[in-house]
Amino acid sequence: MIRIRDGVVSSRPDTLVAEEPLEIRLNGKPLAITMRTPGDDFALAAGFLVSEGVLASASDLQNIVYCAGATADGSNTYNVVDVRTTPGVVIPDITLERNVYTTSSCGLCGKASLDAVRTTTRWPISDTPPVRVEPELLASLPDRLREGQRVFDRTGGLHAAALFSEAGELLDIREDVGRHNAVDKLVGRALQNGDLPLSRTILLVSGRASFELAQKAVMAGIPVLAAVSAPSSLAVDLAAETGLTLVGFLRGASMNVYAGENRIALRAAATQG
Amino acid sequence: MIRIRDGVVSSRPDTLVAEEPLEIRLNGKPLAITMRTPGDDFALAAGFLVSEGVLASASDLQNIVYCAGATADGSNTYNVVDVRTTPGVVIPDITLERNVYTTSSCGLCGKASLDAVRTTTRWPISDTPPVRVEPELLASLPDRLREGQRVFDRTGGLHAAALFSEAGELLDIREDVGRHNAVDKLVGRALQNGDLPLSRTILLVSGRASFELAQKAVMAGIPVLAAVSAPSSLAVDLAAETGLTLVGFLRGASMNVYAGENRIALRAAATQG
Repeated sequence: MIRIRDGVVSSRPDTLVAEEPLEIRLNGKPLAITMRTPGDDFALAAGFLVSEGVLASASDLQNIVYCAGATADGSNTYNVVDVRTTPGVVIPDITLERNVYTTSSCGLCGKASLDAVRTTTRWPISDTPPVRVEPELLASLPDRLREGQRVFDRTGGLHAAALFSEAGELLDIREDVGRHNAVDKLVGRALQNGDLPLSRTILLVSGRASFELAQKAVMAGIPVLAAVSAPSSLAVDLAAETGLTLVGFLRGASMNVYAGENRIALRAAATQG
Repeated sequence: MIRIRDGVVSSRPDTLVAEEPLEIRLNGKPLAITMRTPGDDFALAAGFLVSEGVLASASDLQNIVYCAGATADGSNTYNVVDVRTTPGVVIPDITLERNVYTTSSCGLCGKASLDAVRTTTRWPISDTPPVRVEPELLASLPDRLREGQRVFDRTGGLHAAALFSEAGELLDIREDVGRHNAVDKLVGRALQNGDLPLSRTILLVSGRASFELAQKAVMAGIPVLAAVSAPSSLAVDLAAETGLTLVGFLRGASMNVYAGENRIALRAAATQG
C-alpha cells in the first residue's frame, strides 16, 4: 500500500479487512452467497436462516458442516457451509422454489415477490412487560460497542453489531465487512445457544438501520433496535407495524426515536434535562 | 419522530430516506430484488445488468418498462421493471439457470458458484495511455461529491457515487440507500448514453470499497476507483488482478493507494511535499 499524506509518499504494509464469499447451502442445496469476514461461519449461516424464516430454535438445526470439494480444484472448502435441518422441519416453499442470493449487506434476498418482503415473524415481539430503557443507558452503548471492536481500529472497514441486555449488559458483539452478516452472526449464536427469541435485549448496529436490519431484529424477537446512523423509511414502517422500538442517530446524549417509544423512558429523560 | 437531546425530549417531523424494493426482470423473468431509493430505476436496472455481464452497450438494450399489475392488488407497479434485450443479445446462461437476488449493497449476486465470483470483464480496462491523476486532484473530489449531494444533508442516510473525468470534471452523481445502487445508476446512465466503457473516468464512492464496487468499476471499464473509507482485501485482490487503480481512505490531503499506482502521479506529489 502506498500512503500519501500531504504530498509525502510512503510505502507500507496494511492490514485489510478480509472479505471472502461464503456459499450457504440448506440441506445440500445452494441457497445464498454472501461476502463476509471469515469466522463464525456456522453462526452466520444459522442467523441468516433465522432471518429467512427457516430456523426458529436450536432444535430445528441438525448440524452445520463445511462442504468438501466445493470447487473444481478442491480449494475454498471453507467458503461453503451446509446447514442441515432436523427431520420434520418444514422449509418455507420459497427457499426451495427459488434460489436465494445475498451479499454482504443482505437480508431481503430469497423472497419470491415483493409481497413477501415483509417477512412474517415466527413470533411477535414478546417482551411482557415491555423492555423499558433509559435514554442515558442507550447513549452509553455506542462507546461500549466501539470498545468491543477489536478489529475496527486496525482497518477502519468493519461494521459491528452488539447485543445488550435490557439492563445494558454486553451479551455479544460481532463484526463483519457486511453489517447484515454481523447481525446474522449474533442471531445465529443466540439460536445455537437456545436463546431465541431474544425478548429482553437491545440490538445496536454501527451504521444505518435499513429495512433488512429491522427485519432481522423482528425475526429474532429483539424488541429494541438502535443505530448510530439514520434509519430508512421502510425500516421505520416495519418497526411501526411490528412494534419494534427503532432508535436512530444514537450519538452522544442525542438520539431519535422513530417507533416503539413506549420502551423508552422519556419522562425520566425530560426531568433530567 | 421523537428527538432526545441531552435529556430534552421534543417531537418533530423528520425526512427519511425513502427505501423501496425494486424487482428487476430480464426479458420478463424475475432476476433480482434490490432495496433502493426510488428514482432512476431504469438506469439502476441497466447498470445492474452491466455489472452482471448481460449488457455492454446501449444497442444491447431494447427497452425498459415498468410492469403493470405486479402485485395481487395491482399496486406497486413502479417497483417492478422489465429490461428487454435486443434480439440476438446472448444472455449469460447463469442468469437464466438460476435466479439472481440482490439487495441494497449487492452486486455479487447471481453467480452460479464461487468460481464465478471474479466476473469476467467484457473489456479490459482500456485507458491507453493510462489515465494519470495528481493526488491533489483526487483529494479535491470528496468535497465536490458532498457538495453535489442534495439529499444527504436532509437525512444523513444516503450513499453517493460520483463519476469524474480524468481532468476532475464532475460528470454525474447518484445517491441511493445502497452504495451499489448508486454505482449501478451511474453506470446505467452511461450505458444509456452510449458512454461505455468509461475508459477515462474516476469513480468516487462515499463509503467503503467492497469487492462488489470494484467489480462494478471493472465491468464498466472504469480505470480508477476511489473510496472515502477502507477497501476490503478482496477488492484489493480484484483491483490488482484487473489493473484497476484502487484508492482508499481519501480524506483531506491523505489517501492510500492499494493497486494500480501507475495512474497516480506520485513523483509530483513527493516534490510538492
